[in-house]
Amino acid sequence: MQMPEPDAAILARKDDIVAKLCRILPPDAVISDEAETRAYECDALTAYRCPPLAAVLPRTTEEVAAVLRLCHAEGVPVVPRGSGTSLAGGALPTADCVILGVARMTEVLETDYDNRFIRVQTGRTNLSVTGAVEERGFFYAPDPSSQLACAIAGNIAMNSGGAHCLKYGVTTNNLMGVTMVLMDGTVVELGGAHLDAPGLDLLGLVCGSEGQLGVVTEATLRVLPKPEGARPVLIGFASNEVAGACVSDIIRAGVLPVAIEFMDRPCIRACEAFAKAGYPDCEALLIVEVEGSPAEIDHQLGLIAEIARGHDPVELREAQDADEAGRIWLGRKSAFGAMGQINDYMCLDGTIPVSELPHVLRRIGEMSRAAGLDVANVFHAGDGNMHPLILFDANRPGDLERCEALGADILRLCVEVGGCLTGEHGVGIEKRDLMGDQYAPADLECQMAVKDVFDPRWLLNPAKVFPLAVSGTRRTGAARMAAE
Amino acid sequence: MQMPEPDAAILARKDDIVAKLCRILPPDAVISDEAETRAYECDALTAYRCPPLAAVLPRTTEEVAAVLRLCHAEGVPVVPRGSGTSLAGGALPTADCVILGVARMTEVLETDYDNRFIRVQTGRTNLSVTGAVEERGFFYAPDPSSQLACAIAGNIAMNSGGAHCLKYGVTTNNLMGVTMVLMDGTVVELGGAHLDAPGLDLLGLVCGSEGQLGVVTEATLRVLPKPEGARPVLIGFASNEVAGACVSDIIRAGVLPVAIEFMDRPCIRACEAFAKAGYPDCEALLIVEVEGSPAEIDHQLGLIAEIARGHDPVELREAQDADEAGRIWLGRKSAFGAMGQINDYMCLDGTIPVSELPHVLRRIGEMSRAAGLDVANVFHAGDGNMHPLILFDANRPGDLERCEALGADILRLCVEVGGCLTGEHGVGIEKRDLMGDQYAPADLECQMAVKDVFDPRWLLNPAKVFPLAVSGTRRTGAARMAAE
Repeated sequence: MQMPEPDAAILARKDDIVAKLCRILPPDAVISDEAETRAYECDALTAYRCPPLAAVLPRTTEEVAAVLRLCHAEGVPVVPRGSGTSLAGGALPTADCVILGVARMTEVLETDYDNRFIRVQTGRTNLSVTGAVEERGFFYAPDPSSQLACAIAGNIAMNSGGAHCLKYGVTTNNLMGVTMVLMDGTVVELGGAHLDAPGLDLLGLVCGSEGQLGVVTEATLRVLPKPEGARPVLIGFASNEVAGACVSDIIRAGVLPVAIEFMDRPCIRACEAFAKAGYPDCEALLIVEVEGSPAEIDHQLGLIAEIARGHDPVELREAQDADEAGRIWLGRKSAFGAMGQINDYMCLDGTIPVSELPHVLRRIGEMSRAAGLDVANVFHAGDGNMHPLILFDANRPGDLERCEALGADILRLCVEVGGCLTGEHGVGIEKRDLMGDQYAPADLECQMAVKDVFDPRWLLNPAKVFPLAVSGTRRTGAARMAAE
Repeated sequence: MQMPEPDAAILARKDDIVAKLCRILPPDAVISDEAETRAYECDALTAYRCPPLAAVLPRTTEEVAAVLRLCHAEGVPVVPRGSGTSLAGGALPTADCVILGVARMTEVLETDYDNRFIRVQTGRTNLSVTGAVEERGFFYAPDPSSQLACAIAGNIAMNSGGAHCLKYGVTTNNLMGVTMVLMDGTVVELGGAHLDAPGLDLLGLVCGSEGQLGVVTEATLRVLPKPEGARPVLIGFASNEVAGACVSDIIRAGVLPVAIEFMDRPCIRACEAFAKAGYPDCEALLIVEVEGSPAEIDHQLGLIAEIARGHDPVELREAQDADEAGRIWLGRKSAFGAMGQINDYMCLDGTIPVSELPHVLRRIGEMSRAAGLDVANVFHAGDGNMHPLILFDANRPGDLERCEALGADILRLCVEVGGCLTGEHGVGIEKRDLMGDQYAPADLECQMAVKDVFDPRWLLNPAKVFPLAVSGTRRTGAARMAAE
């Protein structure tokens, strides 16, 4: 993956820039030692690494504003970072950038159960948001697999989903307001603890904007009352295509489970070895979870079982107790980690219309065989958000390149059938150069012109999201502007 | 309400502009006769009227693009119009504008039950979208009271909600993609039949943008399977405040009805006279509806009744059959019409945190008495979207002005308690000059800069949404640009 050359003038001014950062932040908030900046050289897309010029760890919105004001004045690029769990290189540094990490901004600022929201600093992890309200019977719905580690800042940047977003929606459906700092240090408030907002919906625009528009420091999040109960059922099938057809039928029948997760054999095996969840040994497995009172759960699972039986399942088994349900989910949520213990892999994030599942799964199988690389599938099937894992050997020369080429072909297939490049992982650097397959030049121009409004010098999270070729003039022009 | 002076040069060129429009559209699609343009002089905010220069009624995206390209080249402002049901003056013409009405664009372009969407031209009315899919057991969820008449184009422009959006969300939660024509005639596709999209979320930005960014000609809408059944319950109370507190308690308890509607005595009387729904004669009435299987309905209504009993209701009555349920909803959905048979009124659309309902209702009562104008309340209480109706006499000099002043004070109160100026009716011209109460200058500047990207000459739906004072320089500069 090509990255633009770092700005030599900035590299030469490192000491001066670090000194200025030290004047506006507490001493422990500035990291410039080469051994220490190495901790920020990559995110979860570990194939790409580059230590930043420096990293800062502010504790307040005011400190974030001070850092951005300074970097804006100095023309120094800034890469915002949550917990660094991005699978798309969303937090990958450039050598001439300052990493702005929100990891120390973890405070709960306000909880309001009457109006059902919590306001937090965005460095707080996803799971600890639920942790702050669960005693009162509430939870925060979006649940990315990385929820133990990932920060709300990253969830907002990527518009993260999770297994349960089939019912509860993704981050944008659960985000009520943000405090955001623009690149020039201006602090803006978007949305708030109320429905909708007059004028243009900048909150919706910011959600999923991958750190291109500003740095979100505080967020007002919708919390929901925990359902009375929930129960997953495991349904095993003799082939991927049949499992895909069953998902289509469940959705078409109008049953609304809270989650429909899909795993194929390689994933089932890896996860079972890891979590001992009692997954059946079969070609394809669905985990379907429903929620509500015991009577509602029985009713819905009855309908789902009836649909599943029409597809000759090799296994159909409800969780018998909370412990078994917990292990079933632990297995699924550990899928990436479990696969990683066995193989190097690249995780894709294409999204397709649900009815295309059988066709796309068959085509992925054919493409995988043609490329000579195994593909394991584990994903949120209910909303068509696929996560094919391409397995490769990082130590075998050429494997990474073949893997990237296959990944690009699979994502193009998603676009071809009416889907898109990313559901929740974001574009980052990983899918940057595929944006031209998704969008016409006029569409991309429109998006870049909106970035111009928020970040006219193109200093924020550089060389991400937009293809280098189409953003080139802007970045060069902006660099000139920044240098003036 | 002040409107900017029309451009005399455009008025002088009327014949030439009309002749050019006639060259690019079929003869019956251009309306320029003064008697006929009068049909477009206002929308549902009838206090303000101004016939346009001309009106056009294209039938396709290509015709819309041709009109916009021409008006862009000629520097003529364009006011897009759905069915003209805007309560905020969103479709009010200026004397120098061309009204671009989508009323003839009513085709269903595609229905896809596997992936649960319908693609329509945006002139189609809200209710007839459901009409196109209900035979197969589906419906389109957002249900503004005007759903028999209002167009999807206007629903998207205003991000419309409706009684049932407590459960199903508003337009933005049910909109998957649009075809939009920019002011210069460029056609862009945003979103589509898939979850999310990479890059900046321009679809979310466009939804609710009140015709400031482009003209949406086609829309892909999520359709949902109809629930097995639904049943409303009527709960009457001795005071507005107690009814408000009951709403708060239902929400806080984590029950999720599909709708919680609120009416006070003046509305109850007017609606009962109109619909004969058997509304009790009391100070405040809630209509709470739940959905699901008969067992789920019984279970949820049981919880709601228990909560209601804690507030000493004067009436608590479930609909006994579909006919009674139908009349209960007919009464509520006819509220504005029923009130209009008795009084002139101005309908507000403030949104507040649900827990502020009792306080805000008490304050509205006090402000109404101080102003000497009655206020009737009817609104979506579950999500805090209020619709106070200020009653006045249009024939009594000074009444409209006093009514507007009271309306502005009530909306400022909504902002004060952490809410906002509009839930679903939009800003239009009505709340334009209150935007400064909601937003800091930097926030407004940011929104206007985004409009610059889509409509650099500020020709689309002029003098709406943004306060005239703050948009002044832009509009003048743009006018100069347009004239060049």
